[in-house]
Amino acid sequence: MRSTLLSRRDLDFLLYEWLDVEALTSSPRYQDHSRETFDGVLDLSEQLATRYFATHNKLSDAAEPTFDGTTVTIVPEVKEALDAFVKADLMGAGMDYEAGGLQLPATVTGACFAWFQAANVGTAAYPMLTIGNANLLLAHGTPEQIETYAKPLVAGRFFGTMCLSEPQAGSSLGDIVTRAEPQADGSYRLFGNKMWISGGEHDLAENIVHLVLAKIPGGPEGTKGISLFIVPKVLVEADGSLGERNDVTLTGLNHKMGYRGTTNTVLAFGDGTHRPGGAAGAVGHLVGEAGSGLTYMFHMMNEARIGVGLGATALGYTGYLKSVDYARQREQGRPVAAKDPAAKQVPIVEHADVKRMLLAQKSYVEGALALEMFCMRMVDEQRIAENVAARNRIGLLLDILTPIAKSWPSQWCLEANSLAIQVHGGYGYTREYDVEQHYRDNRLNPIHEGTHGIQGLDLLGRKVTQQGGISLRLLTESIGRTITDAAEADDEFAELAEQLGDVLGQVGKVTAGLFAPTPGSGDVDVDAAMANSSVYLEVVGHLVIAWIWLEQMLACEGKEGDFYDGKRQAGRYFFRYELPRTGPQLALLAALDRTTLDMRDAWF
Amino acid sequence: MRSTLLSRRDLDFLLYEWLDVEALTSSPRYQDHSRETFDGVLDLSEQLATRYFATHNKLSDAAEPTFDGTTVTIVPEVKEALDAFVKADLMGAGMDYEAGGLQLPATVTGACFAWFQAANVGTAAYPMLTIGNANLLLAHGTPEQIETYAKPLVAGRFFGTMCLSEPQAGSSLGDIVTRAEPQADGSYRLFGNKMWISGGEHDLAENIVHLVLAKIPGGPEGTKGISLFIVPKVLVEADGSLGERNDVTLTGLNHKMGYRGTTNTVLAFGDGTHRPGGAAGAVGHLVGEAGSGLTYMFHMMNEARIGVGLGATALGYTGYLKSVDYARQREQGRPVAAKDPAAKQVPIVEHADVKRMLLAQKSYVEGALALEMFCMRMVDEQRIAENVAARNRIGLLLDILTPIAKSWPSQWCLEANSLAIQVHGGYGYTREYDVEQHYRDNRLNPIHEGTHGIQGLDLLGRKVTQQGGISLRLLTESIGRTITDAAEADDEFAELAEQLGDVLGQVGKVTAGLFAPTPGSGDVDVDAAMANSSVYLEVVGHLVIAWIWLEQMLACEGKEGDFYDGKRQAGRYFFRYELPRTGPQLALLAALDRTTLDMRDAWF
Repeated sequence: MRSTLLSRRDLDFLLYEWLDVEALTSSPRYQDHSRETFDGVLDLSEQLATRYFATHNKLSDAAEPTFDGTTVTIVPEVKEALDAFVKADLMGAGMDYEAGGLQLPATVTGACFAWFQAANVGTAAYPMLTIGNANLLLAHGTPEQIETYAKPLVAGRFFGTMCLSEPQAGSSLGDIVTRAEPQADGSYRLFGNKMWISGGEHDLAENIVHLVLAKIPGGPEGTKGISLFIVPKVLVEADGSLGERNDVTLTGLNHKMGYRGTTNTVLAFGDGTHRPGGAAGAVGHLVGEAGSGLTYMFHMMNEARIGVGLGATALGYTGYLKSVDYARQREQGRPVAAKDPAAKQVPIVEHADVKRMLLAQKSYVEGALALEMFCMRMVDEQRIAENVAARNRIGLLLDILTPIAKSWPSQWCLEANSLAIQVHGGYGYTREYDVEQHYRDNRLNPIHEGTHGIQGLDLLGRKVTQQGGISLRLLTESIGRTITDAAEADDEFAELAEQLGDVLGQVGKVTAGLFAPTPGSGDVDVDAAMANSSVYLEVVGHLVIAWIWLEQMLACEGKEGDFYDGKRQAGRYFFRYELPRTGPQLALLAALDRTTLDMRDAWF
Repeated sequence: MRSTLLSRRDLDFLLYEWLDVEALTSSPRYQDHSRETFDGVLDLSEQLATRYFATHNKLSDAAEPTFDGTTVTIVPEVKEALDAFVKADLMGAGMDYEAGGLQLPATVTGACFAWFQAANVGTAAYPMLTIGNANLLLAHGTPEQIETYAKPLVAGRFFGTMCLSEPQAGSSLGDIVTRAEPQADGSYRLFGNKMWISGGEHDLAENIVHLVLAKIPGGPEGTKGISLFIVPKVLVEADGSLGERNDVTLTGLNHKMGYRGTTNTVLAFGDGTHRPGGAAGAVGHLVGEAGSGLTYMFHMMNEARIGVGLGATALGYTGYLKSVDYARQREQGRPVAAKDPAAKQVPIVEHADVKRMLLAQKSYVEGALALEMFCMRMVDEQRIAENVAARNRIGLLLDILTPIAKSWPSQWCLEANSLAIQVHGGYGYTREYDVEQHYRDNRLNPIHEGTHGIQGLDLLGRKVTQQGGISLRLLTESIGRTITDAAEADDEFAELAEQLGDVLGQVGKVTAGLFAPTPGSGDVDVDAAMANSSVYLEVVGHLVIAWIWLEQMLACEGKEGDFYDGKRQAGRYFFRYELPRTGPQLALLAALDRTTLDMRDAWF
């Protein structure tokens, strides 16, 4: 029986038939690996996800973490699952040997991790945060910090968090007020409140490493004054043993619509509940240089953004598979042209409108998964790049893809989950089936790690314009190469290439138009340019996914069988039903529409 | 402080400035009423909804009905609220004097009912079903049935249900298997299981009147064999007193994602738990003629479909108002062009992307509310029509509007609720705020009373083609009149009129194309015509709402002030951001796209 979590067949296609992950093994970094080791860890991930994660997905939704004022209680199945994950060495699967990892390609570990997210996104959030936390420290920590904090994270003895938001500062990080006061011994004492901290308190690991953004008094205003600190829940002695409790206190849990398995906390730093060393404040250790905190945090945040996109994709994917299964089993009605009411009912998968809902899901979830895997492949390319220039070029392409990889699945795989409910009819709306939970869980994804609107501002206001527009140029070139390949294939490909080329050309023109000097003043009208940044994000998202679909279709060229026919049909669906949505959006952007700018508060 | 449930200002605009409800009082039916009585019942509804319904909305979500195998337990606040509703005579507000009602116009009672749906859609479902049930019996029951069942429903002593679906027959009602065996005394005994029965068991009223679809053995196959029966929970004696328990047994509750305050049940009819009169089967009474059950049920179902649309609208509306309030209070970030990080943060309502999310909501919820009120106004026109021809003409227009009035708010006011969450950021995803519940509640609406797909089939396969296409012609004429009015107003109106006329013209062409004989065979390709019926539904939906927006904008002509400026700007938003979505959809329909038809089960 095929899994209803993810499709291993599809993953194999993406990894081996399209992205040629095996080619990575010719690089020194991945030379110890082979398709065998890749397959092994993929098999293992599917098994553990199925056995330990999927089995308590409903339970940890129904019995969400509770807080009695002192401790947090989490159903024991969560720890059992995470222990199995750690025991299988998956925490460090992608990390360097010297950090205690298995040094597997990001493309492979990404595919592995998607199994856990599809099975139980709430429980999978703990390792996702821990891995991101460790990667940040491995990149920016001192050798001592790596030894003391990163290695126990890689080993799964400690878990990690990222502490950015505060009650008064969510999207606007420059406005955080948590302060870090320097001490004579080089450490800091932190005072402040952090909001929305996932995994902020629990007993799932020996210790929790909080990575905290705070301001050192006397520094500059805004984001330039932000530094990054390691603040462990329990202080770590010089010999690595655990010491005193640090002054990090859970003040409350947030109760969410979904994603309930992940404890989401409000934390107080230095509120005096504990007084480590007899003094006030939570003990913290500066990471890297003062004032560069946000830059470092983006290391983790970019990884987390792709991780969020992958999670959204995984939820969409499992919902899709479950609704296909349901549609094959559920008999209801007859073909529209049928006249005999006594004829046997047919499985609903035979109805055109149900096929539409399944094809839409397929085009969303397989498109999104392919994009996430492509991004992971770029991460690997970066790691094995021969020189700095090549590495930077890949980095600039990844920069512009990151807001898409985060936001597109968050929007469209949520839509896929809504369609999965719809295919199930009334049953899909009940908690007896899985899909309603996927829909609730997935609704978080357009919010955390930078809202949809923030991704739009990031794309249009930062990534598109950075370094003279080189990122957009690199993306345009990449898409252009696929278009050239397709144009040289058969007639159908030539048609798709033309359609994609047309949208690509329009995106280029519209982008130039947004940043063109205004007649008269000669300045760019920044307000007008940015007013529809969310629309721009959605246009570029659909462009990128259409490109990724064309890539997949090319990888199917000349191959026969249901799997390839399905890929081709889903690709066609995307080009016929989805890509044309960009037409009116491009027209709106081209017109520099001011409807939202002209709206006044008093008119609502 | 303005209410965050609905906008009374907007309702007054719709009722008095646009739909001229006062004009109804010149008809004999409504001659006892005046703006004063209308305002009185609107005031009362707002007060009761605010005081009794809104106050337990979260509670009845968190503490959903439970079933211990014998009885259903519902939080007592539900009965208190419904008692207040009944005591205020609102159950019969729109019904004839002779049935015990207040004979208020449907436009007014609809506006009143929206307050209750905005406050607590789960509790409001009980009266919605009861009113629909009573209206059906008043229209099709015998005088004795009206006396015995309809009047106690109007008085709120009995509550009603509609029992259509069965576990194996949801969208395909022709496949129900509940059977009704005729008895010597003219009554029937029913045997079968019914699924998804809202309000199927509770102690909120003295009795429950189930209206049950069943087949009399020996009748024709399919829908033609369906008859309608009154099956009371407790038998009613000749003198109106309650007698023996009928054999209707609760076998289980469905546990839903939202709409949790409404008990949703699985009922067994005639399973032998009770044996009224010592014999097997649930006692039922035939309504009207055998074999016409579905026709009668559509009386209730059409009303319920507009009721569902109104409920979706009310949920969207309250979410919109709450997110406007939040956006005015929440300070975060600075204008995009601002450079000084030390400047004070601004309320997020000032950010263009937040304005976009609020404007989108405003255009959806005010557009939807106006459509629902327009439909109600048509119901009133029908009631006071001078002759049968006029009544039929209005009925044919209502026929084609009903699938739109049901599906459009179910889709777009759900989207509004998603945007309301997004405006709230992380807070909106928590159960501390209201909007996540509205989103969960609203997700039911594209499913019940005919799914989205069923509405598409109803619109394209039945309403558009009925009686030679007269319904579509009537709709086209109505929209055409508005276009003419607008074209004669100022330049902006002329432009909007042109845009709407263009879409209207395309819908006409596309519709003709779908039903054009195929070259060669000369037959209509029904499969291809119906393959994209959901897309057609969405196109006509956007066309209708754009028309309704143009109507509203015309009603604002020459008027000054924030309210009218807001209406105008929301209308512009709809024409600029929303109506153009129909372009690619129309192209797809014009191409008679076969992508979904060509998809094969094995390819998923």
